[in-house]
Amino acid sequence: MMKEKIKASVIGSTGYAGAELVRLLLKHPQINLLHLTSESYVGKKYSEVYPHMLHLCDQVLISGNDEKNLDCILRESDVVFVALPAGLAMKIGLQIEEKNLKTKLIDLGADYRFDDVAVYEKWYKTKHMHKNANRVYGLAELNREKIKTAQIIGNAGCYTTASILALAPLVKNHLVCPNSLVIDAKSGVSGSGRKANVNNLMAELYDNFKAYGVANHRHTPEIEQALTELNDGKEIILNFTPHLIPDSRGILSTCYAKLKEGVTKDDVSKAFEDAYKDEYFIRLRGAGAYPETKFVRGSNFCDLAWHVDPRTNRVIVLSAIDNLIKGAAGQAIQNMNIAFAIDEKVGLELTPMYP
Amino acid sequence: MMKEKIKASVIGSTGYAGAELVRLLLKHPQINLLHLTSESYVGKKYSEVYPHMLHLCDQVLISGNDEKNLDCILRESDVVFVALPAGLAMKIGLQIEEKNLKTKLIDLGADYRFDDVAVYEKWYKTKHMHKNANRVYGLAELNREKIKTAQIIGNAGCYTTASILALAPLVKNHLVCPNSLVIDAKSGVSGSGRKANVNNLMAELYDNFKAYGVANHRHTPEIEQALTELNDGKEIILNFTPHLIPDSRGILSTCYAKLKEGVTKDDVSKAFEDAYKDEYFIRLRGAGAYPETKFVRGSNFCDLAWHVDPRTNRVIVLSAIDNLIKGAAGQAIQNMNIAFAIDEKVGLELTPMYP
Amino acid sequence: MMKEKIKASVIGSTGYAGAELVRLLLKHPQINLLHLTSESYVGKKYSEVYPHMLHLCDQVLISGNDEKNLDCILRESDVVFVALPAGLAMKIGLQIEEKNLKTKLIDLGADYRFDDVAVYEKWYKTKHMHKNANRVYGLAELNREKIKTAQIIGNAGCYTTASILALAPLVKNHLVCPNSLVIDAKSGVSGSGRKANVNNLMAELYDNFKAYGVANHRHTPEIEQALTELNDGKEIILNFTPHLIPDSRGILSTCYAKLKEGVTKDDVSKAFEDAYKDEYFIRLRGAGAYPETKFVRGSNFCDLAWHVDPRTNRVIVLSAIDNLIKGAAGQAIQNMNIAFAIDEKVGLELTPMYP
Amino acid sequence: MMKEKIKASVIGSTGYAGAELVRLLLKHPQINLLHLTSESYVGKKYSEVYPHMLHLCDQVLISGNDEKNLDCILRESDVVFVALPAGLAMKIGLQIEEKNLKTKLIDLGADYRFDDVAVYEKWYKTKHMHKNANRVYGLAELNREKIKTAQIIGNAGCYTTASILALAPLVKNHLVCPNSLVIDAKSGVSGSGRKANVNNLMAELYDNFKAYGVANHRHTPEIEQALTELNDGKEIILNFTPHLIPDSRGILSTCYAKLKEGVTKDDVSKAFEDAYKDEYFIRLRGAGAYPETKFVRGSNFCDLAWHVDPRTNRVIVLSAIDNLIKGAAGQAIQNMNIAFAIDEKVGLELTPMYP
Repeated sequence: MMKEKIKASVIGSTGYAGAELVRLLLKHPQINLLHLTSESYVGKKYSEVYPHMLHLCDQVLISGNDEKNLDCILRESDVVFVALPAGLAMKIGLQIEEKNLKTKLIDLGADYRFDDVAVYEKWYKTKHMHKNANRVYGLAELNREKIKTAQIIGNAGCYTTASILALAPLVKNHLVCPNSLVIDAKSGVSGSGRKANVNNLMAELYDNFKAYGVANHRHTPEIEQALTELNDGKEIILNFTPHLIPDSRGILSTCYAKLKEGVTKDDVSKAFEDAYKDEYFIRLRGAGAYPETKFVRGSNFCDLAWHVDPRTNRVIVLSAIDNLIKGAAGQAIQNMNIAFAIDEKVGLELTPMYP
Repeated sequence: MMKEKIKASVIGSTGYAGAELVRLLLKHPQINLLHLTSESYVGKKYSEVYPHMLHLCDQVLISGNDEKNLDCILRESDVVFVALPAGLAMKIGLQIEEKNLKTKLIDLGADYRFDDVAVYEKWYKTKHMHKNANRVYGLAELNREKIKTAQIIGNAGCYTTASILALAPLVKNHLVCPNSLVIDAKSGVSGSGRKANVNNLMAELYDNFKAYGVANHRHTPEIEQALTELNDGKEIILNFTPHLIPDSRGILSTCYAKLKEGVTKDDVSKAFEDAYKDEYFIRLRGAGAYPETKFVRGSNFCDLAWHVDPRTNRVIVLSAIDNLIKGAAGQAIQNMNIAFAIDEKVGLELTPMYP
Repeated sequence: MMKEKIKASVIGSTGYAGAELVRLLLKHPQINLLHLTSESYVGKKYSEVYPHMLHLCDQVLISGNDEKNLDCILRESDVVFVALPAGLAMKIGLQIEEKNLKTKLIDLGADYRFDDVAVYEKWYKTKHMHKNANRVYGLAELNREKIKTAQIIGNAGCYTTASILALAPLVKNHLVCPNSLVIDAKSGVSGSGRKANVNNLMAELYDNFKAYGVANHRHTPEIEQALTELNDGKEIILNFTPHLIPDSRGILSTCYAKLKEGVTKDDVSKAFEDAYKDEYFIRLRGAGAYPETKFVRGSNFCDLAWHVDPRTNRVIVLSAIDNLIKGAAGQAIQNMNIAFAIDEKVGLELTPMYP
Repeated sequence: MMKEKIKASVIGSTGYAGAELVRLLLKHPQINLLHLTSESYVGKKYSEVYPHMLHLCDQVLISGNDEKNLDCILRESDVVFVALPAGLAMKIGLQIEEKNLKTKLIDLGADYRFDDVAVYEKWYKTKHMHKNANRVYGLAELNREKIKTAQIIGNAGCYTTASILALAPLVKNHLVCPNSLVIDAKSGVSGSGRKANVNNLMAELYDNFKAYGVANHRHTPEIEQALTELNDGKEIILNFTPHLIPDSRGILSTCYAKLKEGVTKDDVSKAFEDAYKDEYFIRLRGAGAYPETKFVRGSNFCDLAWHVDPRTNRVIVLSAIDNLIKGAAGQAIQNMNIAFAIDEKVGLELTPMYP
């Protein structure tokens, strides 16, 4: 354990992912929470924006757009978490580099998720301004070693975390036909953010269910990048379809793949066990089981189960996470723990809340 | 239009599908609702079991297990709707045959859905007792002509209706690779029935999401039967995965298929338009659209949209129905209208209720 | 029945109350739906704004702010329904008067609800511009006779309908202490309208419950006005507390009153039976019963039950309505039916949708 | 702090309150969790009954009805928590007394809540078998001193906690007319327990709202007992009306009282501040504020706000708790901490989970 606490700031602390970060960081025994920024609520107490934090976080919000504030945040903090819309974190990363600071940056957005910035620019329709950053893709179970040393961590997305963890053991062990992959994913509405928007009103989404972003959702290339790497660099192209569950939190990814000839149910089970037996945050529910989003709600767990269908020779993997924790804030803290050589579980031994 | 009203009875009227039938039949201008049976609530008024029906249906429930009652129901009714667990409708069908009655039977269960009873026996683990019934699979958009004359109609299931209607135009026109089909379906909880069961408690299902019946759900062979027939009898085997949406009603089926080489987006659109342009209950939302379950809630519509992904050469079809209406009671009435040569829309011109 | 259909227009047709009006008017056999206005969606098809109406209402929306449009609407229509924010309907009413038209106006807002415009001006903080209108308070069960002849009907509000109908028999028969009344009311979120607003996001309201508008909600003086009138004009001042139920539709009002000395449970029951025995839309569930909002969802019913507590000598009345139907659109049509001398039930014989 | 950990067992650990206890006790740094009982799931792992506990609690459930087990539990434990239906905890309390054990008993049920067992016997229709127990009513904010020494603690109920804490400062300071109290309370469905029951099915309760137990709910005398005591023993009789919110957790109590003449808004505010300024678990949101159940979800907080209505001279107090925590398991642990002279907050510094 470090003697001194890590000084952490959150840039963009009033979206749902930012709020979950604040909630978890406040309980992290190694963290000293320095600055919280917001552009919509400058000058307000955090607990005025999020009343559940009354007495727990009454800190006043400052603007991160203000140049002087930002400079101060970057200099004073050991680590800054950025939870902003795409295109903004890279400007901060660039500043850190230009100012020659040692501050680590953990971006909950997409700016630092791609090895090939051309992929980012194509899917996000944004010019990338920080191409040769000292960065890593922040999914601890796959990239733990690199996370230890990178200055910038592009925290894996929510759908992508659930989907990559579900398929990684199968792809890595070449048990499935690479271009047979179909990911049908479902997320609670907190994944849509805290923007005022008719489509996200309770009256619209309640007692409803829909798909969106078919064949064009931005998490697609992120999943493909991770799986392609596990496939020895041979390109994987897949279908990813997100849906909106009428509830607050949770992602379930249902992943389909054709098994290669001769692959058995036991091969599949062994691949999962080998891959994850030492991973605290991955709970293998086993062959034939059914993870539920509420089994992981409020925790940093990813629960996995798999089903082999002898009729079609497909494997169906079910993967459940809390989109705001293992899919965002929890994962960011897990990455930070690794980056600061703390036990990965510190601040994240959260029991799911049920019912 | 017929001069006299059709005398109809509902055997098993107190499950959710039965209740929806009663609700719709009461408003059907050509129907005279005769008998309602229930085994759990014999002697109670219908409105005591379902208080929303106060003053609208205060009829007293009788037992359908009672031999004399049943005989009377079968003799007095022009049509009996059966909404009972698997294995019971065939006994009633058999009686109708043995008694040489003209009464039509519309089974909301699975007993009469399969052309090959061996399939039924395998998936339902029940001996079939009425093998050579004068029956038809009751999905009007596919089987309208046969429904006109069959005595027994095996009303298509809820998931199956949404899924078959989504894939039929593609399979029939040979646009997709037959064994590439994956159906990822989601249903509201009314589909689980009105049984007291810890798993179906509000506290368990609320703010939750899960899959079930992976690779073994009984709606699988029903979908395969219909698509195989459309595929000129060449067998189609597919994956079907049901999930439970934390809401009351509605099914969304997300269906994946590999396009055959050279098939274009326009071919796909044309197939849907050709197949359904004259179908009142099918609303084509078109290429790139997103049906939502609440857009059809309370109606007999099936809303369809499709997305062609040039990256993977897959087509993704989205299909939304109200599981209790187009997936059960509405479809049964649609079948009845056809069987009695009434305009198919009578009693079913229901506007979806939103929000 | 009238020979010719009634020409109706809806000014402000794209809020939730307006949408429910459109949904119900389209099925009303005596209505010819002329014009639909919207300021946010001018030029769009109705079904683009509300996709559940695809093929059912593809009419193009026009602006009601446009002077020429409005003039045309007012001249061509036999009745205009207005579903706009407070302060706008009175301008339309004034125009009708100034233009000397016979068009009837049914306002779903508050502009014409108050006998004393000073009350309106105080609670709505808006100058009233149409003080001596030929208007009536549009709650059919209380004001049926006056509704027949008034040109302008101030349709009763949602909370107020549930609350007034619950307390009217008790106040009218002087069974309760007038200043002991407490109304604790709860409404589904569609009552908050279709405005983009962080507070109304699904993520905020789901799995949540809260009060609002304590001691200052604008429905308070409306309830007081109606009950004061029933109290022979002796002023009644009461507490009304609204709450937000995390669901889509439905109001439950729980109303408390001290019984006057000597008043018995039978007196209470008799008062309800006398008041409502001939009212189709009021369903008396009786002493000791529990109306549920889902028992009336999708219908124009108001379900009532009452409980006399001998320990405290209070009566507790429970009242359930669908806020968008009996609390808005259904009530408006009921008022229209009366005003045009049609059977009050036409277009409103709606069966509640359950589950 | 104690040197050795407290050995705790949970009798009846598989209801929702028991499950929440297990969840919280496992994280309590001073607790050694010994035995968990269940009658329905004997021999199963805890995580088989509650899969969210996989790897976190895989302990095997034993029967508490088995005499030898129970004897062993009572002898080995420093404290037993009992979460059983009414009438069972008193048998265990009696055994502890007869066996002359020092084991403390914290009953989450009602057996030990009443000073006057005749009240218990009347409302619970059960003979009390342990009349002169060394017991206390377990609401820490009122009874802290007595909790320190009593052997048996009758943990306050969920509705009662929210309601008593809302009204205590007003009654104690004689600011309100004692017999004017009306409590309109609403609870999430986890309060109904984990019994298989048609009424509690998701399909029945979703998108619904209802009252129940009007004028006869068993929490009524418990509230009256506490408030009567604060009223210097002068009897308070009040109305308490529970309702079911269609969500999982949370209680909001809306409490009405007539202010005595001359009492001002400031008097009211001062009463709350004086009563609770040192209470960590009570968060005063102040005059005019609106607590929401989701602001306290997952925490042991009780959030309070009050509104004085000058028109009616009533005060309306709003009180929000998580029914499973401050209304059950959290309160039980708070009581245990006091009883074992641990800092009251240990194991209970839980941040609410939002959204």
